[in-house]
Amino acid sequence: MAYDLWYWPSIPGRGEFVRLAMEAAGIEYDDCARRLGAEAMVADMATRTARPPFAPPYLASEGLVIAQTANILMFLGERHGIGPSTMAERLWLHQMQLTIADMVAEVHNVHHPVDPGAYYAEQRREAARAAAQFRTERMPKFLTHFEASIRANSGDWMVDHRWTCVDTSMFQLVEGLRYMFPRRMKTLEPDYPEVIRIHDQVATLPGIRAYLKSDRRLPFNEDGIFRHYPELDDD
Amino acid sequence: MAYDLWYWPSIPGRGEFVRLAMEAAGIEYDDCARRLGAEAMVADMATRTARPPFAPPYLASEGLVIAQTANILMFLGERHGIGPSTMAERLWLHQMQLTIADMVAEVHNVHHPVDPGAYYAEQRREAARAAAQFRTERMPKFLTHFEASIRANSGDWMVDHRWTCVDTSMFQLVEGLRYMFPRRMKTLEPDYPEVIRIHDQVATLPGIRAYLKSDRRLPFNEDGIFRHYPELDDD
Repeated sequence: MAYDLWYWPSIPGRGEFVRLAMEAAGIEYDDCARRLGAEAMVADMATRTARPPFAPPYLASEGLVIAQTANILMFLGERHGIGPSTMAERLWLHQMQLTIADMVAEVHNVHHPVDPGAYYAEQRREAARAAAQFRTERMPKFLTHFEASIRANSGDWMVDHRWTCVDTSMFQLVEGLRYMFPRRMKTLEPDYPEVIRIHDQVATLPGIRAYLKSDRRLPFNEDGIFRHYPELDDD
Repeated sequence: MAYDLWYWPSIPGRGEFVRLAMEAAGIEYDDCARRLGAEAMVADMATRTARPPFAPPYLASEGLVIAQTANILMFLGERHGIGPSTMAERLWLHQMQLTIADMVAEVHNVHHPVDPGAYYAEQRREAARAAAQFRTERMPKFLTHFEASIRANSGDWMVDHRWTCVDTSMFQLVEGLRYMFPRRMKTLEPDYPEVIRIHDQVATLPGIRAYLKSDRRLPFNEDGIFRHYPELDDD
């Protein structure tokens, strides 16, 4: 295998953004912790002292160890020619990728507003307030930005005329938000047709179509980043 | 001026990470919103429809508009030869830069745990719990990671043998944490001598020395990201 991917084996989480890009591009990888377990990942991380990751996901290959989701995706884009070719477009793509990462961090914060190390059940009241604010303020703010960003491109995809990791990441963001807040997304989606168009286009890529039908694709669940607690959702 | 930097004029915030790299490198910039005001920045942002920033800071130059702090710093590193030369070191630097950005986002969250759009006074009880968790769990976790990352490099700086933007960013992170939680930092600092060594070395760079004495350097305050509320600090 060319790449070892290490990420928590029981959730899609941030690892899924890396998986989707590799699956779409047909890049082979060994999803190590799904084969060997979470303890094996913790043990492996402890050996990565030359350039330690702060947290999974991280990708290891030929002596390189790369962490931070957006950084991994930038590397894959350059190494495999699946990123844009000009510097201006590379920076623009990475900028959008980092804004997606910011929204994902806010998603995590909805369920863990006062203590990222404690359970949701220990911060339910605070999460209710964080969820209301996220639904009414942050979701439209981010989605409006992504809609405008997609409209700014003359091609069919988010950057230039071919899919890149920011498209596969947008797919996963929409999937996650639909899982997390189905009622809210039903209300919002008609306002963001370009975001939904990118999502739908990604789902038709041959590599993604095959992946979504495979058992490599993990379902969302309440141990992950995108969680569905019905009491937090609303129109 | 080669670069227009746009950031909120009354706080150091995320803009300061960009300023410090440019000041250390002697890169000229026009700190536009400090000259023209926040309204001018909001008006300018509305014109940036070709590649819209989600939020300040953003840097404009010769048709390029670049947002996301870590992305701006990556661009400056490559364009001005103040980043590392190998791909492996560029990725490693950017990985650390993104982990600093993650910690800065958590700092912001301490003061706004349930509603980033509301005042601290409207979420004081939640902030007290978030601050306790940040002090006891997150600060040692991040600082231990940075300490190990610095120790992993054989050179005097965080990457290779010369300063880069991740060093100037580490300086600002330490400055911000000291302002935010002086009592907690006094307890923690002896455990992280390499982090403090990088901070102190950055302060001696000629460009930084001159900058810190100038009126271009903005003090921390309670409208910014790093805020000092004595009730949230503890040993």
